Amino acid sequence: MLYNTLHRRKELFEPLHAPQVGLYVCGPTVYGDPHLGHARPGVTFDILFRYLRHLGYKVRYVRNITDVGHLEHDADEGEDKIAKKARLEQLEPMEVAQYYTNRYHDYMDKLGVSRPSIEPHASGHIIEQIEMIKKILDAGYAYERNGSVYFDVRKYNESHHYGQLSGRVIEDLLGTTRTNLASQDEKESPLDFALWKKAAPEHIMRWPSPWSDGFPGWHAECTAMSCKYLGQPFDIHGGGMDLLFPHHESEIAQSVAAYGEEPCRYWVHNNMITINGQKMGKSLGNFITLEQLFTGDHEALEQAYSPMTVRFFILQAHYRGTLDFSNEALQSAEKGWQRLQQARQTLDRLSAQPTSTVADFLQAMADKCREAMDDDLNTPMVLAQFFELVRLINQAADGKAAFTQADLENARNLYAVYIEEILGLKVEDGSSGDATADRTDGLVKMLLDVRAQAKAAKDFATSDKIRDELKAVGIKVLDGKDGATWQYE
Amino acid sequence: MLYNTLHRRKELFEPLHAPQVGLYVCGPTVYGDPHLGHARPGVTFDILFRYLRHLGYKVRYVRNITDVGHLEHDADEGEDKIAKKARLEQLEPMEVAQYYTNRYHDYMDKLGVSRPSIEPHASGHIIEQIEMIKKILDAGYAYERNGSVYFDVRKYNESHHYGQLSGRVIEDLLGTTRTNLASQDEKESPLDFALWKKAAPEHIMRWPSPWSDGFPGWHAECTAMSCKYLGQPFDIHGGGMDLLFPHHESEIAQSVAAYGEEPCRYWVHNNMITINGQKMGKSLGNFITLEQLFTGDHEALEQAYSPMTVRFFILQAHYRGTLDFSNEALQSAEKGWQRLQQARQTLDRLSAQPTSTVADFLQAMADKCREAMDDDLNTPMVLAQFFELVRLINQAADGKAAFTQADLENARNLYAVYIEEILGLKVEDGSSGDATADRTDGLVKMLLDVRAQAKAAKDFATSDKIRDELKAVGIKVLDGKDGATWQYE
Repeated sequence: MLYNTLHRRKELFEPLHAPQVGLYVCGPTVYGDPHLGHARPGVTFDILFRYLRHLGYKVRYVRNITDVGHLEHDADEGEDKIAKKARLEQLEPMEVAQYYTNRYHDYMDKLGVSRPSIEPHASGHIIEQIEMIKKILDAGYAYERNGSVYFDVRKYNESHHYGQLSGRVIEDLLGTTRTNLASQDEKESPLDFALWKKAAPEHIMRWPSPWSDGFPGWHAECTAMSCKYLGQPFDIHGGGMDLLFPHHESEIAQSVAAYGEEPCRYWVHNNMITINGQKMGKSLGNFITLEQLFTGDHEALEQAYSPMTVRFFILQAHYRGTLDFSNEALQSAEKGWQRLQQARQTLDRLSAQPTSTVADFLQAMADKCREAMDDDLNTPMVLAQFFELVRLINQAADGKAAFTQADLENARNLYAVYIEEILGLKVEDGSSGDATADRTDGLVKMLLDVRAQAKAAKDFATSDKIRDELKAVGIKVLDGKDGATWQYE
Repeated sequence: MLYNTLHRRKELFEPLHAPQVGLYVCGPTVYGDPHLGHARPGVTFDILFRYLRHLGYKVRYVRNITDVGHLEHDADEGEDKIAKKARLEQLEPMEVAQYYTNRYHDYMDKLGVSRPSIEPHASGHIIEQIEMIKKILDAGYAYERNGSVYFDVRKYNESHHYGQLSGRVIEDLLGTTRTNLASQDEKESPLDFALWKKAAPEHIMRWPSPWSDGFPGWHAECTAMSCKYLGQPFDIHGGGMDLLFPHHESEIAQSVAAYGEEPCRYWVHNNMITINGQKMGKSLGNFITLEQLFTGDHEALEQAYSPMTVRFFILQAHYRGTLDFSNEALQSAEKGWQRLQQARQTLDRLSAQPTSTVADFLQAMADKCREAMDDDLNTPMVLAQFFELVRLINQAADGKAAFTQADLENARNLYAVYIEEILGLKVEDGSSGDATADRTDGLVKMLLDVRAQAKAAKDFATSDKIRDELKAVGIKVLDGKDGATWQYE
């Protein structure tokens, strides 16, 4: 079941051409460093991608890169975001786009977000967008004005419903939409949006078209590229709720006008993030890039938060609920994620018992996790199940619960399938690579042997000293009945 | 000084618009995993990029990605390499291109190859290529045939010299070029090359053009994209020697025909690689991908070779000489690189002496390294200087040479500037991240303290045991006058 924004209800997901699934998600506009606002859709649709593949579908995941045409304030006026950055930094616009594309990839990689199947650039699909615009003009839903081409929303709304996705009533919108004098000269109606913009003389990014040397409007690329790579219609279109209007609404209108039908069957939207209860914004001083978040280098942050901590934090909330970032919430998530990882390590050190006290729970947990994911990707429910498992693992380490060999394997399998494969959470223990992990393991073991010998000889000063020095390098010693074990702090 | 293939001599490098430098290098065709043949140009032009920036230039480095139009056997017949792979794997061609683009990036990252400023895709610049082809037609150097467009080499050669770059004589070529019946129908001369190809019905990748639905010829993209991002003419065009003919020769012809002048002033080519004396080729069974090289998973390989070992190996040869990969040569390089790294660690543990026995050498070395790089990127000469330095560092550790505080800083600086910044060699000590390195450092120190206590108490059994166990986890203990130090095996 997936919640379909189009019908405002959960629906059973059935692809058009099983086992293939076509998924299109609106990607970044590459004019600045990736920030918290990029993290949520990145992770959310990564979960959808992973889960669909887990279910056995062959998913073609297309996520675009907007490297032209996205003007300031998401409007049809104002400077192109990338052109502006390029001008400020005295670089060719494509250098800016390349740089921030690379940064976006690096930070998505850190967050464990899988690479999409295809990442088309807006600038690489001008021809396709021009072809689409021609179709819209031929269908009578657009008009040319001074070399630019605008979508005729009022005309469209006579026979269709512009506003169906976002639930807006167009007549109300016409009354309240801020009219911009410059565009008012050109546009017949303030709701009309640019399909093609004639380039001002100083606008470097431009291509020839039947109407002018110019560049495509912001909404055009997603319609043209999703159709090209996924066909028309395709299965799922995703993106943040902030894109509902006008972006996604306009995509639907473009598809209907150009191709005669809606682009896709399911619309999936993640909700917004806030920082300490406020919307994130540069003027509010709470704008945090992912680099700042991961290094702690921002005055609003009390510490650095690791990428996996952030991913875990995002997954502890349902994708359709709001998500508030605060130091308290992130620190709580950090502890939770550490407990989850430590329990996995403890699981490896448990001895198999002859009889089980956990088999029923494990079976029920497997069912509940699957049901939770099937129920509109309820990741917080899955994680809640894992914290029950963590409790049982820790009890077993204290001799108060019993895992048989089969139970241990089932528990490991649950971690492998849900934590690693579906939720994409990678264990962070400070090592990166088996060689390093083995070496650290060997070194700590040597020191624990020395400590054990000291204890046996009643040299508690030495025993305590080793314990303290290990703590100082991030290794926590746990004394138990069978000797000492350890874990990362 | 850079060796300019165009004039077959070393020339002083002077950019057209200092301090800007425009560098264009032919990048990969993304239809397969990156292999040894990709490593050499990747590293070679990374050195050029780094050195130019070190000298203070503002370099715009453009390296293309060929995701369409490169047909089998580099010919005008045969299947598009990416289309063929897509067909075999039942994927959309752009999925193939995306997958192998990501793989290429991952492996270039491992090799320490910097990201270029702009990485334009052939498929994203169809319009620019069409515009260029129109210009060539208008200039009379091309003709249309059945929806395809061919460059008229014979016509071009009447007033220009097709063959100037590669040193070929066109009349001889006409006599020896294998004629292909199918293209013979279309081409007026076998040397003519496709600028635009009409797409066969099953060819998925296609765009509309004035001549047909089709796709650009292989040579067109580099001319169109280098002109777009670097202007015409620009400074340096790089690539492997295997691209001299017909690819680079044709690029020159396209520029002259379309824009009236040659594309660039300097042509820089790296020489080819061989495997055990043979050219690398799938039919020869010696085709090795970078993944196989780094994991050792190929029958021709006796072991795995780390990315930095491979980079070091490449840099030990001059870029214009051939480079033969063999297990012996790679193992020798591995030892050399380890010595270089170990000496850097040893340098950190040397005590500053009051008088110097190395100051003159260090001064001479700084001069020689600079002269070597200035002399057509003579990286092997730079590395030879470093092995002299390594000898002195090891002597100093044995008390047979003396570094003052200033000498130590100068030596560290030489490493920082030449080894890290210019040659891009990253220290590989098995750790990845300061936290892990600190922790390992702390753990080893604790064990060495225990060992020192055991030795002081004449408990040599324990002292030896610790030494052996450390060796088993890759830590080599070095006993010296001032106590024990250590390094990674």
